[in-house]
Amino acid sequence: MIIKEAKEGYLSPEFLAAARHEGIDPERLRRLVASGRAVIPKNVNHHFSEIRAIGEGLKVKVNVNLGTSKDYINLDEELEKLRIAEKYGTDTIMDLSTGGDLRAIRKRIIGDSNLTVGTVPIYEAGISKAKLPSKAVVDMTEDDMFNTLEQHGKDGVDFITVHCGVNKTSIKRLKKQGRSTGVVSRGGSFLLAWMLHNDAENPLYANYDYLLEIAKEYEMTISLGDGLRPGGIADATDRPQIEELITLGELVDRAKAANVQSMVEGPGHIPIHQIATNVQIQKSLCRNAPFYVLGPIVTDIFPGYDHITSVIGAAIAAMTGADFLCYVTPAEHLALPTVDDIKEGLIAMKIAAHAVDISRGIDIHLDHEMDIARYALDWDKQFALAVDKEKANMYRNQRRPRTDEVCSMCGDFCAIKMTKDYLNSDIKTVDV
Amino acid sequence: MIIKEAKEGYLSPEFLAAARHEGIDPERLRRLVASGRAVIPKNVNHHFSEIRAIGEGLKVKVNVNLGTSKDYINLDEELEKLRIAEKYGTDTIMDLSTGGDLRAIRKRIIGDSNLTVGTVPIYEAGISKAKLPSKAVVDMTEDDMFNTLEQHGKDGVDFITVHCGVNKTSIKRLKKQGRSTGVVSRGGSFLLAWMLHNDAENPLYANYDYLLEIAKEYEMTISLGDGLRPGGIADATDRPQIEELITLGELVDRAKAANVQSMVEGPGHIPIHQIATNVQIQKSLCRNAPFYVLGPIVTDIFPGYDHITSVIGAAIAAMTGADFLCYVTPAEHLALPTVDDIKEGLIAMKIAAHAVDISRGIDIHLDHEMDIARYALDWDKQFALAVDKEKANMYRNQRRPRTDEVCSMCGDFCAIKMTKDYLNSDIKTVDV
Repeated sequence: MIIKEAKEGYLSPEFLAAARHEGIDPERLRRLVASGRAVIPKNVNHHFSEIRAIGEGLKVKVNVNLGTSKDYINLDEELEKLRIAEKYGTDTIMDLSTGGDLRAIRKRIIGDSNLTVGTVPIYEAGISKAKLPSKAVVDMTEDDMFNTLEQHGKDGVDFITVHCGVNKTSIKRLKKQGRSTGVVSRGGSFLLAWMLHNDAENPLYANYDYLLEIAKEYEMTISLGDGLRPGGIADATDRPQIEELITLGELVDRAKAANVQSMVEGPGHIPIHQIATNVQIQKSLCRNAPFYVLGPIVTDIFPGYDHITSVIGAAIAAMTGADFLCYVTPAEHLALPTVDDIKEGLIAMKIAAHAVDISRGIDIHLDHEMDIARYALDWDKQFALAVDKEKANMYRNQRRPRTDEVCSMCGDFCAIKMTKDYLNSDIKTVDV
Repeated sequence: MIIKEAKEGYLSPEFLAAARHEGIDPERLRRLVASGRAVIPKNVNHHFSEIRAIGEGLKVKVNVNLGTSKDYINLDEELEKLRIAEKYGTDTIMDLSTGGDLRAIRKRIIGDSNLTVGTVPIYEAGISKAKLPSKAVVDMTEDDMFNTLEQHGKDGVDFITVHCGVNKTSIKRLKKQGRSTGVVSRGGSFLLAWMLHNDAENPLYANYDYLLEIAKEYEMTISLGDGLRPGGIADATDRPQIEELITLGELVDRAKAANVQSMVEGPGHIPIHQIATNVQIQKSLCRNAPFYVLGPIVTDIFPGYDHITSVIGAAIAAMTGADFLCYVTPAEHLALPTVDDIKEGLIAMKIAAHAVDISRGIDIHLDHEMDIARYALDWDKQFALAVDKEKANMYRNQRRPRTDEVCSMCGDFCAIKMTKDYLNSDIKTVDV
C-alpha cells in the first residue's frame, strides 16, 4: 500500500516512476506522501505507465474531464477525446460519463489509457436508479452508493471524488445564509437532493469509515469533493463553502489514519483577489493535503471563453500553492464539450501549469530553447518546440511573409533581423 | 492643457467625461492627473467621445494594436478590425501600420474612431526613408524623426510611443551583458540600428526637451517605450531592461515638469513569479506613472496561444498595479493578425481587465446578474449578459440539450435543476 510503504520507508516502484517524471529524489517524494502532502493515485487493479504524484512543490498537474452525457452518448468520440488529452500532455483524466452503459464506458477508458483515471461514483449510483421506471436519483439506497464505490475499485479507478462534506451541518449553513447560485456540483446536488428527500445524513459522511475501507482495499485515492463550492463570483468564499472545507479537513485526518491517500477539491468561481486566501485556508484546514482546483473561473460574464477565465485563476492558484488543476473547456456552462473543446481547454490549462513550473525552475530550458530559436529566426526549430505545432504552423501559413526568414507581422522591419544586422557582431548570447 | 489644468485645480470637460466613465468624482481624477498617477490622452486636434483616463485605481484599460504591414496592406480590413475592437470594448487603439500610405491610413483610422488613438511615429520616420531607392531605415535624419512626431501631433494622435530610453548607456549595458533574444521592440530596433550605424546618441533622448515641446503643442501624451524589453523568458528582468527603466523614470520627471502627460511601457515576456516585481519597480522608479504592459507573456512555448499566455501575465500585472494592458493575439510571433485574431485577443485581455476590476469592486454587478440568471436557468438573460453573445450561443447550439431548460453537459442531471427541485423552497437568495 503506497501510503503505508511511504510511512514505513519503503520505496515501491510507484515512487520510482513518479519521481522519475518529476526529476526528484524518490526519497523526497516518499516523505511527501508519508506526510500527506502528496499522493500517488494508483489502484491495485490498474496497470499503467504514466504514474503521477500530485502535491507540494511537484510539477503542477492537469486533469481532463471527459465522458458522455444523457443527451450525447458516443463512446468513439470519448475515446478520441482521450487520445487528444494524452497527445497534449494531460496528467490524468476523469471519466464523468452520465449517459449510456456507464460501466462499459469506464472499463474501455481505463483499458485504453496510460494515465491515472478518476471517477465520481455517485453519478452512476444515482443515474442507474433514475433509469428505472418511476425511480429518481433520490431513490438510490446506501447500498447502491457503496456498491458502486466497490465496483469502481474493482474496475481499477485510481481516484474517486466523494462529496463527504455535504452533510446536515453544511446544508443547515447553506439554508441559513442563502446563495445566488445554490449548489452547482453535480455530485453534491445528488447528495443534497437525496438527503432532503430522505431526511437523512449523507451516507458518505455518516459511514465514512466504510468508504475508507473500500478505498483502502483497492488503494483508491479519495478526492474530497467540494459539493458546496460556489457557482458564481457572488457566492465565492462564503460560509457554506468554508464550513464544508473544515469538515473535509477532518476527513483528511481520518483518511491518513486509515492509510488512505487523500486530496481536497476546491472551487470553482473565485474573484482574483480571493484565490490566494482560498489556497491558504485549504492548506491550513486540511493539513497540507494536495489541493485540486476547478479553474477557478475569475469572472462569470464570458461564457464561451471559460477556458481562459479559468486559466487565469488556475495560474494564480498554482502560484499560491494549488497542486492539481482541472481544465475547463470553452463549452463550460453551455454544452457538452467536443474533441476540439477538449484540446482548447487542455492546452490553456497546460499554459497555467507550465507557467508556474517555470517559477519553480522546472522545465525552463524549453522556453530558453524557444527564445534562442526565435533570435536565430529558425522557424523549423520554433515549430519543433511549440506545444501545438499544427496551430503554430496554421497561423504562420494563414499569412505567409514575402521573405521566408521573418513573419508577416513586421516583414523586413523585423526587430530581430534589424538587431542582428547591426548589433550581431557586438552582442554576446548568454548561457541560460 | 489637461495636466496644467489639473495642477491648477480646473476641471475641464475631459475630466468630467473620463470620470463619468469611471464612476468617480472628477476631483479625485484631477488629483491623480496632477500628480502624474493618471493620464487622459487627448490631442487638441482630436475630437472623440470615448475619453479615457488611465492610471492608479481606475478601471483597468485595454489597448488593441492594428495596422497594415509591408506584406499585407488592406485598409478595409484594418477598419473592420477597428469596428470589432470598438464592438468588444477596447478602451484605446494603436495604429501600428508599416505598409502603404501611412499618413492616409492613420488619418482614416483617427477619423473613423471614437476612441483614444496611439501611434509609434518612429515607424513612419524610418519606413518612409526605407522606401526610397538605395536608402534604409538607418538613413533617416533627426529632422525626419521630429517632423514625423509633429505630423502625428497635427493629425490628432492622442498618445505616442517614444523609445527615448534606448541610449548609449543602455546599449552599452546590453552589449556588456549579452542576451538570448537581442532587441524585440520594432521601434527600439530602428533606433538601435540608427545609433550604431550613425555612431550617435538617440535623438529622442538627446533632444528630449524638443520632443516635449512638440508633445505639449498638440497635448499628446507620451508613452515611454521600453525598446530594450526582454523578448523571452530567458532575458526577463535583466540589466539592460532595468537600466533603461531608470532612464525612463528620469524622463517621466522631466515630462511632468514640462506639463506633458506621460506613461511608461513594460514587457513583454516575464515569468509569472517576476511580474509583481516588475510592476513595483516601475512604480517606484517612475514615481507612479501609469504602467502600460504588453501582456506580459508568461511562457514562450505556446505559439498560437499567446492571447492566453499574455492574459495570465496581464491579470497578475494588473492585480499588482499595472494600469493599461496591451492585448496580444493568437497570431503573435507568427503572422499579422486577422480580424478574428483581433477579436480573440481583445476578449481574452478584457477578461483580465474585468477580473481585476472585480477585485476593486468595479462592475461586479455584471457577474452577479449572470449568477442569478444561471440559477434561474434563464438562457436569454445569460446570453444578454454575455460579453460575446454570438459565441456563447454558438456553443449552446453546437450541442442542443433535449430539454431546453438545461444544457447538454448534464441534461436532466443538472445540479442547479436538482437543487431547485429539492432545496428551492428552503433556500433564500441573497442580495449581492
